[in-house]
Parts: sequence; C-alpha cells; structure tokens
Amino acid sequence: MTLNEKIEKALKSYIPPENVYVQKLYDAMEYSLVAGGKRIRPLLVLEFCRLCGGDIEDAMPFACAVEMIHTYSLIHDDLPCMDNDDYRRGKPSNHKVFGEDIALLAGDALQALAFKTATSHITDKNASRVARAVNNLAYYCGAEGMVGGQVIDLESEGKNVGIERLREMDRKKTGAIIKSACEMGCIIAGADENKIENARCFGENIGLAFQIKDDILDVTAEQEKLGKPVGSDLENEKSTYVSLLGIEKCSELVQSLTQEALKNLESFDGDSETLRKLALSLAEREY
Amino acid sequence: MTLNEKIEKALKSYIPPENVYVQKLYDAMEYSLVAGGKRIRPLLVLEFCRLCGGDIEDAMPFACAVEMIHTYSLIHDDLPCMDNDDYRRGKPSNHKVFGEDIALLAGDALQALAFKTATSHITDKNASRVARAVNNLAYYCGAEGMVGGQVIDLESEGKNVGIERLREMDRKKTGAIIKSACEMGCIIAGADENKIENARCFGENIGLAFQIKDDILDVTAEQEKLGKPVGSDLENEKSTYVSLLGIEKCSELVQSLTQEALKNLESFDGDSETLRKLALSLAEREY
Repeated sequence: MTLNEKIEKALKSYIPPENVYVQKLYDAMEYSLVAGGKRIRPLLVLEFCRLCGGDIEDAMPFACAVEMIHTYSLIHDDLPCMDNDDYRRGKPSNHKVFGEDIALLAGDALQALAFKTATSHITDKNASRVARAVNNLAYYCGAEGMVGGQVIDLESEGKNVGIERLREMDRKKTGAIIKSACEMGCIIAGADENKIENARCFGENIGLAFQIKDDILDVTAEQEKLGKPVGSDLENEKSTYVSLLGIEKCSELVQSLTQEALKNLESFDGDSETLRKLALSLAEREY
Repeated sequence: MTLNEKIEKALKSYIPPENVYVQKLYDAMEYSLVAGGKRIRPLLVLEFCRLCGGDIEDAMPFACAVEMIHTYSLIHDDLPCMDNDDYRRGKPSNHKVFGEDIALLAGDALQALAFKTATSHITDKNASRVARAVNNLAYYCGAEGMVGGQVIDLESEGKNVGIERLREMDRKKTGAIIKSACEMGCIIAGADENKIENARCFGENIGLAFQIKDDILDVTAEQEKLGKPVGSDLENEKSTYVSLLGIEKCSELVQSLTQEALKNLESFDGDSETLRKLALSLAEREY
C-alpha cells in the first residue's frame, strides 16, 4: 500500500459506524472527507514524523485529524453565507447535496472528529506528546489561525488590501494548518524544539508558496483542470498576489520560498527526499 | 470569589488577546461566551472533580472547554439555515449582531478554542488524564453525540415522532455534553471506572430531566422569564415530551429521574451536597 492509500484507508476507518438516526450526517461527513484532494497535510504529518525518527503509525491519527479540519473548513467555506460555491473539486459542494443545515453540522462534526481521532490511541508513554499535538492543532485551526484567516478574507472582499494584510490572511488561512501538520509530525516523534522550529519554517514557506501558486493558477489554469471557475477571485474583486505583484514577480517568489523550504530541511539528519519532492511538486504543479 | 465568578473570569481569560485584523471574530466569540447562562456544565466538571478528590483548578480548563462547546452549538443552532432564532437569552443572537458569516466562524473558532483550552496546562503528570478527557469531550460533542442529536432534531421537524426517537435525540443533543462534563470531572481527578460510570448515569438522568423540564417550561413559562417565544417548539410542529405524554406525566418523570440522579451520587465518598442541590434546582426551576 502506498502512503496515500494508507491515509485514505485510515480516514475512512474513523467515520462512525452506521446509525439509523444519524446516517445522513455520517454520509455528509464521508462525502467530503473521501472526495479526494492531494492529502498534502496528512503527508506532511507522516513525513515529518518519519524524518524525526518516529513511527508513522503513531502519527496517522494526527494525519487524519488535520485532513478532517481541512475538510470541515472547505465545507463551511462553500456555504451560501460564506463563498457560496456550488462546486468543490469538480463535485457538487456538500450543501448542494445534503442541504445547508446538514452541511453546517457535518463541518462541526468533522472538527470534533479530528480531536477524537487525534486522541484515539493514548498510552502512558505517548500521552504528553498527544496532548501537545492536540494543543498545536487547536491553536492553528482556531481564531488565531485558520478561522482568523477566513475572517480577514471575508473582511477584505471588495477592498483594495495591501500585501501585508494579504500575507497575514494567508499565513493564517492556509499557512496555519500546514505549519501545524509539520510541527505535529515532529511532536509525535518526540523531536527537540530546534527541529520543530525548522519544521514550522518549512511549513510557513511552502504554505505561502502554495497560496501564491494558487493565485497564479487561478488566473492561468483551465477550468476543468482546477474544478472551479477560472478567475473567481478576480470576479469577487479580491486582492491577490497576482493582482498586487503581477505574475512574473509571483513566479519568482514561489521559487525563492521553495528554495528556503528546502534549506529548512537541511537541519534534519534523516532522509528528507520525499519532503523535498513535495515542496518542489507544489511549486511546479499545473492544477 | 464564588465558583460561578471563577468560571466567568476563567472563560474570559481564554479569549485571545486583541488583534487588529481579527478583532471582530474575537468580539463575536466573547459576545456569546459571556452572555450568561447558568454555567451548569462547567459546574458539573468542577464539582465532580472535587467530589473525586481532585483540585478544581486542574478541572477549570475543561469546565471552560465544555461551556465553549455549548456556546458554539447555540450560535450555530440560531443560524438562519438552522432554527433561525433572532434572540438568545433575551439578547439578539450572534448572527443578528455580527452577521451570518462571522457567527458561523465564531462558532467554529469556539469549538477549536475548547480543545486548545483543554490542553492549555499539560504536565507529564496530568497528560494522560488530559488526553483522555479531550477524547471524551470530542466524542460527546461530535457526530455520535451533540451534533448527531441536532441532526435527529432537524429530521424530526414537522413529523410525528415517537418517544424512543425523542429520547435518542435528547440523549445526544443535550444529554451528551452534560454526561461529558460529569465524566471529565472524574477523569481529571483520576477517579476509577466505577465512579466515572456513576457520574455518567447522573449526567444521563439530570440531562433527560432537564430536557423534559424545558419542554414543560416552554409551554407554561412567560416569555420574558425564558427569553424566547413561549411555545416555539409547538409552532414548529415538533414533538415534545409534553405533546407526547402530557404535562402531568412529564412532571412525574422529572421527579423520578432526579431521584435516580441523587442515588447515583451515593456511591461517592465525598461531599456531594452541591451536586444534590444542583440536580434538585434543575428539576424545580421556573425558567
């Protein structure tokens, strides 16, 4: 089994067993959770755990947890009172299939499931690392992280916002749980603070490169490849890196941030080839 | 300082410090978190911790966490795509003040804050208990607990549902995090499984009594006392204990469940007077 297949299998295993009263909710949760995506965040958890000498089986609950958080944020982001998107990854968005009320609750339940999953294998030996990793995830996915970033995003619509505010938005909105994924992998492996700090910088750099690349692709990619309307951010009059800096400068930034990220990996003793490849593939992707 | 004052102070202390970009979100979170309420769930956490010989300071993060979960559920419950309530505890509901998008995100962020708060004081000594209590809360507030109960509630609207389904709904919707509060208090104090089981039964009994009493009050109480329209459940054509069993039978049930709850307390060695009074006051309350 490839690592991605292991992640898919693990994700499915955490959906609660059938229940006659609540099945619609479970179906809605599963619909979005197994809807594909690149599983970048789970891979970061597992690879940083491995890089720090840990067992990826110990990190798998956190790999799944971070993907559950990511998935719930997409469901809520698509709701009519938010971005009002009818499609996600080329499929009807959650609320188009299950209704707004169930979609809202499926998101809520996926957030809870993330923390249940993260604490599903507690032993006296790992409890301290598990509790620290939970705290890390909760911090980065909450008001000071991902959700805060979504608020900055909302408040920026239809405004000309500067590059500082845009960076702060992305640092929180997409960057925060990417950083959390990198840090949690290290925490579960019992890595020292220096390594956690380097993982955080790696996450910060690829997170920003990822977002700038997203803005570039939003302008250049073809609709069917991306699975969402090309140029939707421009239509909403949102400031993007491309609208502020131009495509050429943005492409340079993606390259330099990726090189920084590769440097962050040098402080680790283990084999970081997979993470190197991941960073490079994010920078070079065409969808 | 009374215990309730300590809870209020602790709750406020966990709201993130001021941030120029995200202040609206923090304000929305605080608006609902400090909007009053009886703080029954935090009290249950603290009192069961004390009853099992623990230090209530150790239980305070979990007391606050369970109230944050309760608060987020009320914010989301009031949203237009859910119950569409304009008022909560006599004040405009969160989305009427901050808008639907911010209210949605404030709920999301409060759920994250609950798990951040719960893991805010980790030591090697308490880590195992903390991780177990997190798992307990995440289980009871998610798809198999509170959120599942809300789904049963939604799916029951406008239908004649039987007493079994109504009980399953309440066991999850309101009962689940009341049970979690009782169990977490014991877990943090390091109590044995037998005590945790008795705490769970106590929570189950007062949770159901509480909900039946709520149904009675919804019919009989005056609007200004309750802070929401009298008879709103009837208007929505929801089955309630009162509509299914009548007020007299319901009043008997509240009494017998409360007596059961008092029996559950007998297995504890410590002073359970506060919990006895709490159970009785819930049964006898008039709003």
